[in-house]
Amino acid sequence: MQLGVFRDPASVAVVGASENRSKWGYWLASGALAGAHRRRVELVNRRGGVVCGRRCAPGLSDVDEAPELVALRVPAAQVPAVVSEGLSLGVKGFLGITAGVPEEPALAAKIRAGGARLVGANSLGIVDTATDLRLAWGSFTPGPLAIVSQSGQVGSELALLGARHGLGISRFVSLGNASDVTATELLADLADHPSTKVIAVYLENFANGPALLDALRGLGKPTLLLTVGGSAASTRLARTHTGSLTSPLEVVDAACRAAGVARVSTPAELIDVARAVLATSPPRGGRVAIIGDSGGQCGIAADVAHTHGLLVPHFTQDIGVTLEARHNPVDLAGAGEQDLANYAEITEAVLRSDDVDAAVLTGYFGRYGLDIPAIAEREVAVAQRIGQLAGRGKPVLVHSMGPDSPAADALWAAGVPTYDRIEPALQALRGIAALGRPAEPPLPHQTRPIGVLPDGYWETRQVLFDVAFPRGLVVRRREDLDQARKLTAPYVLKAGWLAHKSDAGGVRTGLSTADELLDAFDKMSARLGPGEYVVEEQDTRPNTVEILVGARRDPDFGPLIVVGAGGTETELHHDVAIELAPVSHATAREMLDRLRCAMLLHGWRGRPPVDIDGLAALVHRVSLLVAASPLVGELELNPVRVGPDGPLAVDALIIPVSRQEARRA
Amino acid sequence: MQLGVFRDPASVAVVGASENRSKWGYWLASGALAGAHRRRVELVNRRGGVVCGRRCAPGLSDVDEAPELVALRVPAAQVPAVVSEGLSLGVKGFLGITAGVPEEPALAAKIRAGGARLVGANSLGIVDTATDLRLAWGSFTPGPLAIVSQSGQVGSELALLGARHGLGISRFVSLGNASDVTATELLADLADHPSTKVIAVYLENFANGPALLDALRGLGKPTLLLTVGGSAASTRLARTHTGSLTSPLEVVDAACRAAGVARVSTPAELIDVARAVLATSPPRGGRVAIIGDSGGQCGIAADVAHTHGLLVPHFTQDIGVTLEARHNPVDLAGAGEQDLANYAEITEAVLRSDDVDAAVLTGYFGRYGLDIPAIAEREVAVAQRIGQLAGRGKPVLVHSMGPDSPAADALWAAGVPTYDRIEPALQALRGIAALGRPAEPPLPHQTRPIGVLPDGYWETRQVLFDVAFPRGLVVRRREDLDQARKLTAPYVLKAGWLAHKSDAGGVRTGLSTADELLDAFDKMSARLGPGEYVVEEQDTRPNTVEILVGARRDPDFGPLIVVGAGGTETELHHDVAIELAPVSHATAREMLDRLRCAMLLHGWRGRPPVDIDGLAALVHRVSLLVAASPLVGELELNPVRVGPDGPLAVDALIIPVSRQEARRA
Repeated sequence: MQLGVFRDPASVAVVGASENRSKWGYWLASGALAGAHRRRVELVNRRGGVVCGRRCAPGLSDVDEAPELVALRVPAAQVPAVVSEGLSLGVKGFLGITAGVPEEPALAAKIRAGGARLVGANSLGIVDTATDLRLAWGSFTPGPLAIVSQSGQVGSELALLGARHGLGISRFVSLGNASDVTATELLADLADHPSTKVIAVYLENFANGPALLDALRGLGKPTLLLTVGGSAASTRLARTHTGSLTSPLEVVDAACRAAGVARVSTPAELIDVARAVLATSPPRGGRVAIIGDSGGQCGIAADVAHTHGLLVPHFTQDIGVTLEARHNPVDLAGAGEQDLANYAEITEAVLRSDDVDAAVLTGYFGRYGLDIPAIAEREVAVAQRIGQLAGRGKPVLVHSMGPDSPAADALWAAGVPTYDRIEPALQALRGIAALGRPAEPPLPHQTRPIGVLPDGYWETRQVLFDVAFPRGLVVRRREDLDQARKLTAPYVLKAGWLAHKSDAGGVRTGLSTADELLDAFDKMSARLGPGEYVVEEQDTRPNTVEILVGARRDPDFGPLIVVGAGGTETELHHDVAIELAPVSHATAREMLDRLRCAMLLHGWRGRPPVDIDGLAALVHRVSLLVAASPLVGELELNPVRVGPDGPLAVDALIIPVSRQEARRA
Repeated sequence: MQLGVFRDPASVAVVGASENRSKWGYWLASGALAGAHRRRVELVNRRGGVVCGRRCAPGLSDVDEAPELVALRVPAAQVPAVVSEGLSLGVKGFLGITAGVPEEPALAAKIRAGGARLVGANSLGIVDTATDLRLAWGSFTPGPLAIVSQSGQVGSELALLGARHGLGISRFVSLGNASDVTATELLADLADHPSTKVIAVYLENFANGPALLDALRGLGKPTLLLTVGGSAASTRLARTHTGSLTSPLEVVDAACRAAGVARVSTPAELIDVARAVLATSPPRGGRVAIIGDSGGQCGIAADVAHTHGLLVPHFTQDIGVTLEARHNPVDLAGAGEQDLANYAEITEAVLRSDDVDAAVLTGYFGRYGLDIPAIAEREVAVAQRIGQLAGRGKPVLVHSMGPDSPAADALWAAGVPTYDRIEPALQALRGIAALGRPAEPPLPHQTRPIGVLPDGYWETRQVLFDVAFPRGLVVRRREDLDQARKLTAPYVLKAGWLAHKSDAGGVRTGLSTADELLDAFDKMSARLGPGEYVVEEQDTRPNTVEILVGARRDPDFGPLIVVGAGGTETELHHDVAIELAPVSHATAREMLDRLRCAMLLHGWRGRPPVDIDGLAALVHRVSLLVAASPLVGELELNPVRVGPDGPLAVDALIIPVSRQEARRA
């Protein structure tokens, strides 16, 4: 991979060095010189001259000894010549700052062929604070956060916001056009980067998603992904910006769950989460107790928690202490003011409950000592006690009206992230909860793949051998209908070769006698002509629910499994859950429970619950099948009718990858 | 109302004054003395002594002249005696800080009867910075924000957050138990309070909603409401906290729209919006142009805008200048860095478009001067230019990576709210957009009210005289069915006296002949017994959509009109829109367009669009009817089947207020 040259090169040259502080050449030169105590630094400018007190060489060849790394900030048209010169001298790495380099892909290929690598072009620079490598705009405080960003400016904003909160940078890489070195490589390179404790990555697209996921899984460091695509406007923009389609955000979220990455929506949220990651351990889930001395602040916190998808559950058992009953939020109602120790005692009692994975304190705690100096020391002691409690495995986060107090400092020092508003406290908890999510155990892949893609509904039924369908048979001619006597009425007749049977009038249901079936066949075959018709027993079980079970192949991330509300209005309500395939039975079950229509499955309006486990087993099997079958572009069982005695697929469609791609073009 | 005594009393006494800084008695005494230059201040303590250098009187009667306002911080059991003493001396106002006062409602009544008023008890105090009235915990910077809060601590948090951002307080009132003086009165009192320019109110419940709405409408000052109820947990908590049911948040939102109030979710959001309110004017709508020099930051901003319900529309016409095409977000792609003036030029071009109501800048602008001192002055000049543009009527808000720079100060000074993160910039825009929403014009109330409530479905059809139903007739005996020949098959038979007809097997549809109808009648009447059956023509029009049109009476806010996805799964998808009734035709139309299922109305999957205007007219009429009919507790037309040729209600139910209340108990 040869990326060491971008981490701690033995020597570096800045080509295009400048004395003008409003120019990139100045920032690169002055930054490079900050590392002059540990590496040779050469400044190059065609016109010679002196920059930052150093004499510039007129060209790379004029430097005594060839540098390992060259930072390029010359006019775009001059870049190819400088690269050629550098390659001939044995340069190992180029950092391309200049935008608009002509024929950049070819240049990148030439660099690789020459045994070197290119970061950029159009990069906003590289920083490694551990090695004092500073080749970027702005100043960077050393610290534990690595930033890898497809947008240089988003990277800069992250660094600035981090600095404002005392969170420094281990490494900063602006990918630029990524014509050679990719985000995946740069991320993988952070696995053994000792000063990096948490990773921030901004990406707009996810070409070669599986490799990216492998890299992320192999990092062993908490990783926070910032991306776009949550609105039509940002999706449009990303398309014009990078020229490529972006994966839908729900697919990116599925990928994040698969890789144990937490997705955030803004730079500020990323920094809030990163600070929490460094201070405490992830909870095992998203169930939180809210504790406060004000009912108002507790209620506001509960609403914000809900907005962020956290649960504020009732306690199933009395948690004891001074609290009445099982209320969550836990409103101290003055008990905190009476005795600060109550904050710690209640926190301890709450964390003992199996109903919650974490606690969030909201309100005055952290400020008492500012208003009443006499109790300042006591408040710090209680803060430390809360830190001890959090150290037992369930994190505690705090929103404090005194975020800059000695007590707040004591909370941070004791591993209790403390924020000036309730929003970041809960966003941070959501973020670390995403990191704490247990990884999907590896799944056996013994499923037989679909080798030859089926033609029509009947073949589709056959290849989906472990999906239950109603009993049925193929009918080509009128005479074949005799065999239908083996089936139980009412019947369904389908024109099996049609992909969209209903729309084309290729489905008749509720045929209650053999005569009605015959009549329906005559009429349908007169209209649609000869073909492979299918007769099935109609599913007349009461209390069934229609669910969509589907799979598709994402261009970036590969096979996906999808469940959703079934029927024709699936698109309308967009009540779906998506994961990368395959999924375990447990994950399939959890996907179904995530649907809004899950309450239909659990027994709606007095109806009996359906066989959710049987349905989850089906989802699991379909996910294995699609993961094992690279020719399948899309698979849709819609609807699967699920009753108390199990699921039955009543329609099925498989679209080959080839056709899926044709459709996309 | 006699509330002047809580604004600028001629004299004030603190009963329970203390020298101990950890006690309320200290904060009240020291605060009261801060106003000693303009009013007489008396300190009272049973044990006498000296507090803040002043000798305390042992009792109220020992004070030379009776004070107008008395702040009470004595043990709860002593409060009634002090109140009696005060009333006999002619005290005009009491501020009750102590919690747990025995028989507080009776005491409040006694105070009123004695010609005085009570704020509290269990209040966290009153502040009026214009008159140096300071009877609360903490310190308060003077400024334009009035805070009226049902939670003292939420009020304190608002004051602290405001102070952190240079936003001071005109008035602070913690309602406490509001046993006498209500939020409505205190809000109304702010109408002619000169130092108040913007109002923050925190409420957990809305008893006497119409009076509150009247007060809010009459204020003529921008008002921001913070409340809870966005989650099951906060709703539970508010119930235990205040002992009363809270109105659902969607009803509170409808009330806010009716009163021109902006609802916010957290104290920090409130302060962010309040600062914007003071700096700029509300936009006419929520359509925003995003402008930035980084595609990444533009995309993130677009996603955040979407999250907050703002629109980032395509431009329908080229906006000219250097921009390619009609993209929004507007990515300057380096043009800003090349020449800072481009920020102003693009902003001007964008604001000229009829497609947007506001612009938001995101990214580096505001920071250039910090990194490149040579262009600092130019950046300030561009900031001022942007302020001029915003002054023309469409607000501009900024997210800047240099929020503390001279350029950011220049933006604020020029009326351009500038924030350190993208979230508050967009939340503030959303907030001021809610304030800018045009008010519903007054509606004529000429509708005849429903005087006598109907008994059964047939009578319900009759009283809903301007709702279209299918043709039908009443059938009590078998012989009556002869008349059904006047109707066109297929028929529907309904047991009209049943409220939940379908659940009880009291509906048969698809009766295609008179014989089938007769047979169905025989079977149904054998099962359900004699009663008022109704036969209707079945609506067989193609391409209809099922919509719910309903109305109900909220215990706090009165009549509501509801539209939603019709049918049995309305509850499941909760696809509804709610407004206070009555609504205009235009608002009814806008409610329908807000539904997720609106796309069914506009022509779904190639079907023709339905008669939305006819449906909106129906919603309008139903809203007038329910507003005029105080006996109607609930009215539900579900479904209304709407086709291209208009709406037809196929079921209707009216529940009297009396029954609604019985059900609630």
